[in-house]
Amino acid sequence: MKTTKKILLPENEMPEAWYNIVADMTTKPLPALHPVTKQPMKPEEWEGIFAKELVKQELSEERWIEIPEEVRTLYKIWRPTPLVRASGLEKALDTPAKIYFKNESVSPVGSHKLNSAIPQAYYNKIQGVKHLTTETGAGQWGSALSVAAKHFGLDLKVYMVRISCEQKPYRRSIMQTFGAQVIPSPSNTTEAGRKILAATPDSPGSLGIAISEAIEAAITQPDTKYTLGSVLNHVILHQSIIGLEAEKQMAMTGDYPDVIIGCFGGGSNFSGIAFPFLRHKILGGKDLKVIAAEPASCPKLTRGVFQYDFGDTVGMTPLLPMYTLGHDFQPASIHAGGLRYHGAGSIVSELHKEGLVDAVDVKQLDCFSAGTLFARAEGIIPAPESTHAIAVAVEEALKAKVEGKEKVILFNLSGHGLIDMAAYDQFNSGKMSNYEVTDEYIHQTTDRLEKLV
Amino acid sequence: MKTTKKILLPENEMPEAWYNIVADMTTKPLPALHPVTKQPMKPEEWEGIFAKELVKQELSEERWIEIPEEVRTLYKIWRPTPLVRASGLEKALDTPAKIYFKNESVSPVGSHKLNSAIPQAYYNKIQGVKHLTTETGAGQWGSALSVAAKHFGLDLKVYMVRISCEQKPYRRSIMQTFGAQVIPSPSNTTEAGRKILAATPDSPGSLGIAISEAIEAAITQPDTKYTLGSVLNHVILHQSIIGLEAEKQMAMTGDYPDVIIGCFGGGSNFSGIAFPFLRHKILGGKDLKVIAAEPASCPKLTRGVFQYDFGDTVGMTPLLPMYTLGHDFQPASIHAGGLRYHGAGSIVSELHKEGLVDAVDVKQLDCFSAGTLFARAEGIIPAPESTHAIAVAVEEALKAKVEGKEKVILFNLSGHGLIDMAAYDQFNSGKMSNYEVTDEYIHQTTDRLEKLV
Repeated sequence: MKTTKKILLPENEMPEAWYNIVADMTTKPLPALHPVTKQPMKPEEWEGIFAKELVKQELSEERWIEIPEEVRTLYKIWRPTPLVRASGLEKALDTPAKIYFKNESVSPVGSHKLNSAIPQAYYNKIQGVKHLTTETGAGQWGSALSVAAKHFGLDLKVYMVRISCEQKPYRRSIMQTFGAQVIPSPSNTTEAGRKILAATPDSPGSLGIAISEAIEAAITQPDTKYTLGSVLNHVILHQSIIGLEAEKQMAMTGDYPDVIIGCFGGGSNFSGIAFPFLRHKILGGKDLKVIAAEPASCPKLTRGVFQYDFGDTVGMTPLLPMYTLGHDFQPASIHAGGLRYHGAGSIVSELHKEGLVDAVDVKQLDCFSAGTLFARAEGIIPAPESTHAIAVAVEEALKAKVEGKEKVILFNLSGHGLIDMAAYDQFNSGKMSNYEVTDEYIHQTTDRLEKLV
Repeated sequence: MKTTKKILLPENEMPEAWYNIVADMTTKPLPALHPVTKQPMKPEEWEGIFAKELVKQELSEERWIEIPEEVRTLYKIWRPTPLVRASGLEKALDTPAKIYFKNESVSPVGSHKLNSAIPQAYYNKIQGVKHLTTETGAGQWGSALSVAAKHFGLDLKVYMVRISCEQKPYRRSIMQTFGAQVIPSPSNTTEAGRKILAATPDSPGSLGIAISEAIEAAITQPDTKYTLGSVLNHVILHQSIIGLEAEKQMAMTGDYPDVIIGCFGGGSNFSGIAFPFLRHKILGGKDLKVIAAEPASCPKLTRGVFQYDFGDTVGMTPLLPMYTLGHDFQPASIHAGGLRYHGAGSIVSELHKEGLVDAVDVKQLDCFSAGTLFARAEGIIPAPESTHAIAVAVEEALKAKVEGKEKVILFNLSGHGLIDMAAYDQFNSGKMSNYEVTDEYIHQTTDRLEKLV
């Protein structure tokens, strides 16, 4: 078979169900706990925050969950996404490794986030919800949800980390163009926001604070639900479409990945590409390494602790069992805004604890070097987040060269970087810093966790 | 047959030759003239500026010109591009018309420009050229050529209109990330630039000035050739890949377009989508309307004159037979930078004169209204240039509604607008102007043309 550059899956072969790895885990993830009672969250407690069907998915141990027809129709705007042979990158590295990437950057908003935004808006819509709230850091999730909310005729309020809102006004414009209301966080519209502003009037905000505000706005207003773009099980579930497609596409090439890599923020794109393959390792003993690529400035999997922790700063979310740096950890202002989150989702955390998921942390400058190499070799400027996966893929390909092995490497290109050129500008002009974090600071923020549960 | 959202063409059905409409034109376009002698340009004169093979294509009357294997391989990074049924837009307009668009925004640089950048870099490379020069306005062409030049190991100098360079620093960063040298124009690096700066030290630049500089830089330096992203016959030729794919894809739907629309700057994306279909109108009498959608602020086809004119401001290019507003016409600062060019290519001009190509001009605010409607209905933010095609498509669809006709409309989505959010920001905040041009000003700039030939 002649190798093509892109391996395309016909629309009618797009998977009809999402894959839930919980079904195949020997040890299930520990349950989320109520933030006040510290007892396992009951479905009706979750339903105060999220749409019913999403709660059902959050707690499900079913292996396959059908993708509704209406969601599938919308997926087809850009899915199935191409699997691409990174032949240019292979040549640039002069490696015997075969490198493939799943190109999620072709989505209309430029990232994988739309995979979960669409079903989340859909399930809220059919339940009769009228308004959605959410938070966004770099703006990828907010943009995706804006598209989905508009399609289903839902109002959307996005709490956007203030500093991002100022530094990335164009992401704000994208959300507004799709009809969403964007509120810089911390704001005066919630008690959580007012509390922070009273203490720190010029607070730049954080994802944790924005989550607190968005949840408060949802639970205090009628017909309103909250939505989240990563971390939780139902989000991970929706993203499995990435790996399920990739599995069929890899089969079309005749190759099977030895290593799978995804960048790691809360876990949504990483889990999406990795879990459908990891399934075969769990069930059938397939030899496979899956690597979460996280920033050296926010290294929860490589240097955090496994502990119950809050998902937000103020402490309104359920307590989740996670690898965490502590919910008041303040990550440095790296450009990969989507990876600046203190904790890892419960499923990934459990799998990491069991040794089924590896993790590597990467410094910012190495990421942008790898990103620039990839851009010049493959013609696509990757999102700052995705450069983390690329840096690890490059490392693996160079290892293969030293070992003289024809290893098959698959990574997820979670998004393009065309809206992040300020970051590349800084890199090109030599003004970018590396940002690492001291053990001392990590201890400071994680030591406080022991009292939580 | 169940209608799919995207109509995908398998890689192996990608056309193997470009289509040259000159072969089928009853009246061939008038020849380009030497700027000094006013005699038809000889091939060797063209070759002082452009690569040999491109000159051959520029003057060719062959119907089909084979796409080199290496170019085809690179095309496959993102081609064939999807043909999409704009079902969301149809629903929003409640029209009986069927609307399709060819989605050229999925290219790695976000526009159709890469279709010609790759072959142009390729033919220069195989001829042994080492350095390329070009100009860019909004930056779409410069970005595309940067990718192509890097791939073939060619140095690239891009003269970027100074005002665009300042207003769109991220387009500059894209080119730099791909390794190109970007020079704000007018600059001190050329005599043309120095002359302009001496007269107008704070000149914001124009596409015409940048062309003068890029040509001068090419003809005065060794192993260097110039490249252009629109207007000329060989560029139009390369873009025919758009329409050739669309033709096969339309056949897959069972529909055939009644109307084809492309936005119009120099003519490259418009000709690309339209000419392969127009062929059947010329040859077989197929009933078909093709419409060039131009900005009301730069209306060369609807309000310009048919006359020999220069392609640049200073008068270094060959004289081309074109609908023109005069080479010193100063278009208003609309956001569709790619459409701010004073003249139309020779082929389109001839076809327009014969009544085979229609033209409509659209005001900026109507374009952004249509663009926002499209974004909300289809989930894709269109480039400011592409909104012109959308505005005309919407108009045609509404006409079909009034007439109760199930008309088939096809337009080209030449690019996405994710790097143009400043423009949407201005529109969203109500600060955008319409910019029209007076007959008086058009007379001022076109009356001077009579002395040229």
